[in-house]
Amino acid sequence: MITQTLKWVGGIDGFLELIDQRRLPAEFVKLQCRDVEAVCEAIKTLAVRGAPAIGVCAAYGLVLGMQKLAADAGLEQGLKVLVESCEYLASSRPTAANLFWALDRIKNHAQKFIAENQDATIAVLQEAILAEANAICQEDEYMCRQIGINGEKFIRPGAGILTHCNAGALATAGQGTALSVMFEAQKKGRKFKVYVDETRPLLQGARLTAWELKQAGIEVVVICDNMAGWLMKQRSISAVITGADRIAANGDTANKIGTYSLSILARENGIPFYIAAPSSTFDLSVKSGAEIPIEQRSADEVVIFAKTKIAPDGVSVCNPAFDVTEAQDIAAIITEKGVIEKPNAEKIARHLGGPSQ
Amino acid sequence: MITQTLKWVGGIDGFLELIDQRRLPAEFVKLQCRDVEAVCEAIKTLAVRGAPAIGVCAAYGLVLGMQKLAADAGLEQGLKVLVESCEYLASSRPTAANLFWALDRIKNHAQKFIAENQDATIAVLQEAILAEANAICQEDEYMCRQIGINGEKFIRPGAGILTHCNAGALATAGQGTALSVMFEAQKKGRKFKVYVDETRPLLQGARLTAWELKQAGIEVVVICDNMAGWLMKQRSISAVITGADRIAANGDTANKIGTYSLSILARENGIPFYIAAPSSTFDLSVKSGAEIPIEQRSADEVVIFAKTKIAPDGVSVCNPAFDVTEAQDIAAIITEKGVIEKPNAEKIARHLGGPSQ
Repeated sequence: MITQTLKWVGGIDGFLELIDQRRLPAEFVKLQCRDVEAVCEAIKTLAVRGAPAIGVCAAYGLVLGMQKLAADAGLEQGLKVLVESCEYLASSRPTAANLFWALDRIKNHAQKFIAENQDATIAVLQEAILAEANAICQEDEYMCRQIGINGEKFIRPGAGILTHCNAGALATAGQGTALSVMFEAQKKGRKFKVYVDETRPLLQGARLTAWELKQAGIEVVVICDNMAGWLMKQRSISAVITGADRIAANGDTANKIGTYSLSILARENGIPFYIAAPSSTFDLSVKSGAEIPIEQRSADEVVIFAKTKIAPDGVSVCNPAFDVTEAQDIAAIITEKGVIEKPNAEKIARHLGGPSQ
Repeated sequence: MITQTLKWVGGIDGFLELIDQRRLPAEFVKLQCRDVEAVCEAIKTLAVRGAPAIGVCAAYGLVLGMQKLAADAGLEQGLKVLVESCEYLASSRPTAANLFWALDRIKNHAQKFIAENQDATIAVLQEAILAEANAICQEDEYMCRQIGINGEKFIRPGAGILTHCNAGALATAGQGTALSVMFEAQKKGRKFKVYVDETRPLLQGARLTAWELKQAGIEVVVICDNMAGWLMKQRSISAVITGADRIAANGDTANKIGTYSLSILARENGIPFYIAAPSSTFDLSVKSGAEIPIEQRSADEVVIFAKTKIAPDGVSVCNPAFDVTEAQDIAAIITEKGVIEKPNAEKIARHLGGPSQ
């Protein structure tokens, strides 16, 4: 069964139900968010993570924020509460692009709705906001599914697929990006095995991706990051599929640290390397990977492991969160619009500009 | 200060002092082994590790075993006790080649001594055994030092050196192999930085190598294994130096899992990759890396960390302990005899057969 990370339960008086990812894989616990504060806390503490999933949660957070309004509240008061909720939610993860995008979309939608329906009751505005949040959620589900449908052909029967970090259902409102490709191949009845890099320092691969794939009944082999190259050389791995955090206009792709190394090791061993990501991941304002800034994260992520210090006091740590894989080492980028084989600036511009396939 | 992993304190009535590596890096504790059982336990529980260090400990373990003899015991009885101690110590780590080698060497030495000195007292035999154990220890110290002297020229001023796992003083009776090269470069007054791969699953890099280098006053940066490639591409790393577990006749080198990937990433980025190891690491009975068997270790090493389960129950794990780096990707192999640049079967045969440089 493919994991459903989040679900809105009920109508405008309903609540948001989330898988609490902080407790995976040891425990599978659902969290019910019944007010905007609970959603904010869930995002802040990584109970929910992954850019698309955060965006959808924030949208539903706004629906929850509106529940505090009295039934006879006016539309202006409704808008005021909405804007306050937006500001509150925006503080939960200040660098999450999808979060701001979703908040803005709901706010704009509400403003337009009020301008066009000045005599509506607050309940009707609440319905409109819920409908827009549902639309964001459904678009994400559709996008995920389409990525899978477009990419499943790359998984051959008997394949050994390597993935890195978590680009799965847990990171989206749908069935993920890289993992969606696997889920669609599975639906076609194909048998294959997925090697999951544990993905140090935060172990999203071992903790989350392995859990999701297992839930879906796909054969999983967890490995340490430093084993992937050797398994490619041993022919255990026949393709690599990862997600992406940002893709430059020329196809250079920023993703979780370690992805660059996998792309080189895959090329060395004649193994195709695929990126699966929504078309919204492209940032055409960035010409090439050299322009993508790489976030440095805290030393503690590396040197404290399960509350145990694993390195001596006083040593330096380097902890880049991402690296950049060059377009020339990517066999194809799979989006909800289709597939860009051997990506370059021209093909990408055409892909993004052209009609959906 | 360069770490001294083990030391014999006193004469034939003395004891063996060891750094307890199980407690590093959190605590620096010395362990005093006063009987053969304590040495056996230290080897078994990895208080001491690294093939050369284990060999030397076992040799001193035999000296301890002889202490139970009465002053008026006969030589035959002495030999009997020695053989019993050998058998006991041999059970501590049944696959450690250096362990058997050291035990055999002491036993042969004692047998020869008895044959030539039939009227000697037991104390004189004990002195002979201690002298041979000291010789094994001093040869290891000399070997380590020579590797460093032969390799230090490869560390340029301002270099960023990457190392993997622990090929340091903690693994030998001397100043290590790969780390010896760094210690000798430091003695020449050269400033450089060492990037230390944490080395999953057992984290010997983060726990042991980082500790040793810091003790010696060398600048250390701990990284996760999946960051090394990206730091090479960023030009932070200018050379890679690792140890070796076994080197085939053609120069293919088995070392800790992850080493193969580093060799490919180094070549990709135009960075020289060096192996530092004693000439005893060559196994000429093995023609190439393809013939070296790769030990698979337990899944728990990967999925249980500091008593915390990091992956869901029921997933498979692949945990190869070693991989093989091809000779063509090794810029040079540094031994106590000298340097084999661009190693191949012919050069290796000449290096091993020829006089020490």
